[in-house]
Amino acid sequence: MTVTNIQLDSNGRLKHFLTTEGLSQQLLLDILNHAESFAGVGKRAVKKVPLLRGKTVVNLFFEPSTRTRTTFELAAKRLSADVLNLNIPYSSTSKGETLSDTLRTLEAMHSDMFVVRHDNSGAAHYIASQVAPHISVINGGDGRHAHPTQAMLDMFTIRRHKGTFSSLVVAIVGDILHSRVARSLIHALTTLGVCEVRVVAPNTLLPAEVEKLGVHVFHDMRRGLADADVVYMLRLQRERMRSALLPSENEYFYRYGLTREKLAVARPDVIVMHPGPINRGIEIESSVADGEHSVILEQVSHGIAVRMAVMAMVMGRFHDNNAEGT
Amino acid sequence: MTVTNIQLDSNGRLKHFLTTEGLSQQLLLDILNHAESFAGVGKRAVKKVPLLRGKTVVNLFFEPSTRTRTTFELAAKRLSADVLNLNIPYSSTSKGETLSDTLRTLEAMHSDMFVVRHDNSGAAHYIASQVAPHISVINGGDGRHAHPTQAMLDMFTIRRHKGTFSSLVVAIVGDILHSRVARSLIHALTTLGVCEVRVVAPNTLLPAEVEKLGVHVFHDMRRGLADADVVYMLRLQRERMRSALLPSENEYFYRYGLTREKLAVARPDVIVMHPGPINRGIEIESSVADGEHSVILEQVSHGIAVRMAVMAMVMGRFHDNNAEGT
Amino acid sequence: MTVTNIQLDSNGRLKHFLTTEGLSQQLLLDILNHAESFAGVGKRAVKKVPLLRGKTVVNLFFEPSTRTRTTFELAAKRLSADVLNLNIPYSSTSKGETLSDTLRTLEAMHSDMFVVRHDNSGAAHYIASQVAPHISVINGGDGRHAHPTQAMLDMFTIRRHKGTFSSLVVAIVGDILHSRVARSLIHALTTLGVCEVRVVAPNTLLPAEVEKLGVHVFHDMRRGLADADVVYMLRLQRERMRSALLPSENEYFYRYGLTREKLAVARPDVIVMHPGPINRGIEIESSVADGEHSVILEQVSHGIAVRMAVMAMVMGRFHDNNAEGT
Repeated sequence: MTVTNIQLDSNGRLKHFLTTEGLSQQLLLDILNHAESFAGVGKRAVKKVPLLRGKTVVNLFFEPSTRTRTTFELAAKRLSADVLNLNIPYSSTSKGETLSDTLRTLEAMHSDMFVVRHDNSGAAHYIASQVAPHISVINGGDGRHAHPTQAMLDMFTIRRHKGTFSSLVVAIVGDILHSRVARSLIHALTTLGVCEVRVVAPNTLLPAEVEKLGVHVFHDMRRGLADADVVYMLRLQRERMRSALLPSENEYFYRYGLTREKLAVARPDVIVMHPGPINRGIEIESSVADGEHSVILEQVSHGIAVRMAVMAMVMGRFHDNNAEGT
Repeated sequence: MTVTNIQLDSNGRLKHFLTTEGLSQQLLLDILNHAESFAGVGKRAVKKVPLLRGKTVVNLFFEPSTRTRTTFELAAKRLSADVLNLNIPYSSTSKGETLSDTLRTLEAMHSDMFVVRHDNSGAAHYIASQVAPHISVINGGDGRHAHPTQAMLDMFTIRRHKGTFSSLVVAIVGDILHSRVARSLIHALTTLGVCEVRVVAPNTLLPAEVEKLGVHVFHDMRRGLADADVVYMLRLQRERMRSALLPSENEYFYRYGLTREKLAVARPDVIVMHPGPINRGIEIESSVADGEHSVILEQVSHGIAVRMAVMAMVMGRFHDNNAEGT
Repeated sequence: MTVTNIQLDSNGRLKHFLTTEGLSQQLLLDILNHAESFAGVGKRAVKKVPLLRGKTVVNLFFEPSTRTRTTFELAAKRLSADVLNLNIPYSSTSKGETLSDTLRTLEAMHSDMFVVRHDNSGAAHYIASQVAPHISVINGGDGRHAHPTQAMLDMFTIRRHKGTFSSLVVAIVGDILHSRVARSLIHALTTLGVCEVRVVAPNTLLPAEVEKLGVHVFHDMRRGLADADVVYMLRLQRERMRSALLPSENEYFYRYGLTREKLAVARPDVIVMHPGPINRGIEIESSVADGEHSVILEQVSHGIAVRMAVMAMVMGRFHDNNAEGT
């Protein structure tokens, strides 16, 4: 962690949340700990806290995603912020106003936070590097690069079930190559000190030199899942099928789909995770997705709490010297 | 009414509102009585009550409808709930995530209520049978099946004008066959003890064995409207015209369009109703739609009050033993 | 100003805001003065005032405009109103429900205010002439006719920089013919007593008899900008290019694009304005748009304050005898 990390302010506090890469273990733990304080809010009769009352959160979605937009919108509303949903199709940024002018305009409206979703890797960083000092940027997924709130809700879910990270074996299965979820998760797992992180995939779905991320590579699923504490199944984008990276859905499922039988080699208390939405029968068998090891729906619930925590943190709501807090 | 009615909880209270069929007279009267308490809210300087503050209402629209979505959105906001609008096109449920997974995901976000609009008859029932125990489902119109909040706002409007139901003659005119409004209204009218319910339509626009619903069938409009206290005109979907069920717009209007002249055979204090939007000159003459007997716009106003009442009821806001209410 | 001005109530107070034409200097000054009181709200920790709590504002957009819709939505939310966004495509008003029925329906839902955007000149006036007495209409831009809140935020920005209006020379450059912004601004400038208003454009982009609006016509930009205090650049709709009104983008920029070099003939403290979104390199050079004379982003900020002021005024929030205010 250096003070020049664009994600941190001059006091080393979280200013933007763009990637789990390069953040300290303590900062990631802070996110998890603050999220704990919000985890109960969803179950209360009045699911609202006034932490961001009078703040303006802009969901700036250059790539459509109902699911991610919905979780950020709910998180912001439960923090009592005002939310503006802007879907900006690619076409409108190519002609007419530049991205920079769009950002300047939203800043001038006294927005406080941009949640950015974009299909270009690096878009959230670029936007964070461009915005006015009073704006915080949260990456809601950029290209193949990062999806850090997803990674943190995954870590939150793991900690809830396993207590600590240090002794764990975590196996991530599927299309590592194209997955921003996998990249962000791997950085979070290694930073938080997970004992062993495995990636399980055919060579065509692995990035070059993936071992440099600190993971062990497996091509055989039964070997990759052996004694795993956590099995994390990635979503298979069906487009990949057609692009000749993969032989067929049937063969993929045969080799890399999660079944009860393959899961049997993992530890008895293994948890099964997935970022959603699920392709049943492609990357995961229904009986496993709905089975006793699955924590997939808990991930969704924790997603609201973790996003509330990140939003409140980048707005300075947990600073000791913050006098204006509610 | 049996305890196995999916709409009721184990104490016989309204849990979901899916159809007016099979609900007791007392329960329908409870809805009308609670709606009375909200009817004044729309005229107050501050049109808000805090009954559902901190609750999350999801408008889950599989079929687009600005008008219905708008009334539910306003009703929820005036109850101080947070509202999420999700328009889910058919295509996205056919490929990718299953409906069941979409519901599970929204539940995991700690939603409290789904307002469902779907063009498949039975969709709201199916969803209510699938959701977690803490979720209530309100049917905002499903296929040709039911549109129960529309029926209850109609009953509310009738009661406001006529005081009681028992002595009334109500004539419903038009496309009974394809109308979820008509079905829900007929059940509400008969349950609330209306003296005589008439349907007035050509045979091609009547369901088989419609008499079993407890209605009298008329093909001639002047005979069907004779001495009526309430004339309820259904919207004619123009698509039906082309499907050869009907001869022509002109001939339809000639036979079944409501004119001043035809209305003259009804009682002098007859009220004219329509669920909207109106096709002027197709099913109703402008001078009647805007005339002194028309209560069409009152129906719209009462729609907000009735939806507020139903939303508050399914959330348990009028239970005697409810301690968490505001 | 006459009492029959549709924009004013019987006490001469602002009821609708449709155009800057025909309003008194005092009323325009009232708008600016009230906007001053809101200009600080955007910088506060809690950007909200409760003036319109419990009011329902409907953004009634017949022509899509993310930018304008966004500013009105933010202004309404910062006044604590509930906001309903309705995008009504042309097609849906041509078939089915009439505009009048749509308005009646929204009124019946106890809406308080319609913000109207329409590509037909006069649409906002027509709607204001049709609505129920309790509804206020704000014109968010209608055809080539008017965009009065844009004009008032421009006047607010000018006053902030120049203090008074009387001694100013203001040059408006570009497509005057098709610009509702230009029309509304010219009326505001002349009503507020600006010394000299100039329009700078080729003959093909000037309305017939434009001098009757009280402006001086220039075809040469260097002469039109000489000693100007304010240079207001209009957006050039690229569609005009193809319609043979203009020779080419290059030639247009050469003759009417704003460059540092052309700006040099204006006063040293000239301010450069633009309603946005900017076409960089078409009507304005980037170094000028981003330069020290540009106040373009201030215009955006002031747009929120001015719209809050207008919304609060038409809702009677600044009447002396208003007892229901918060």
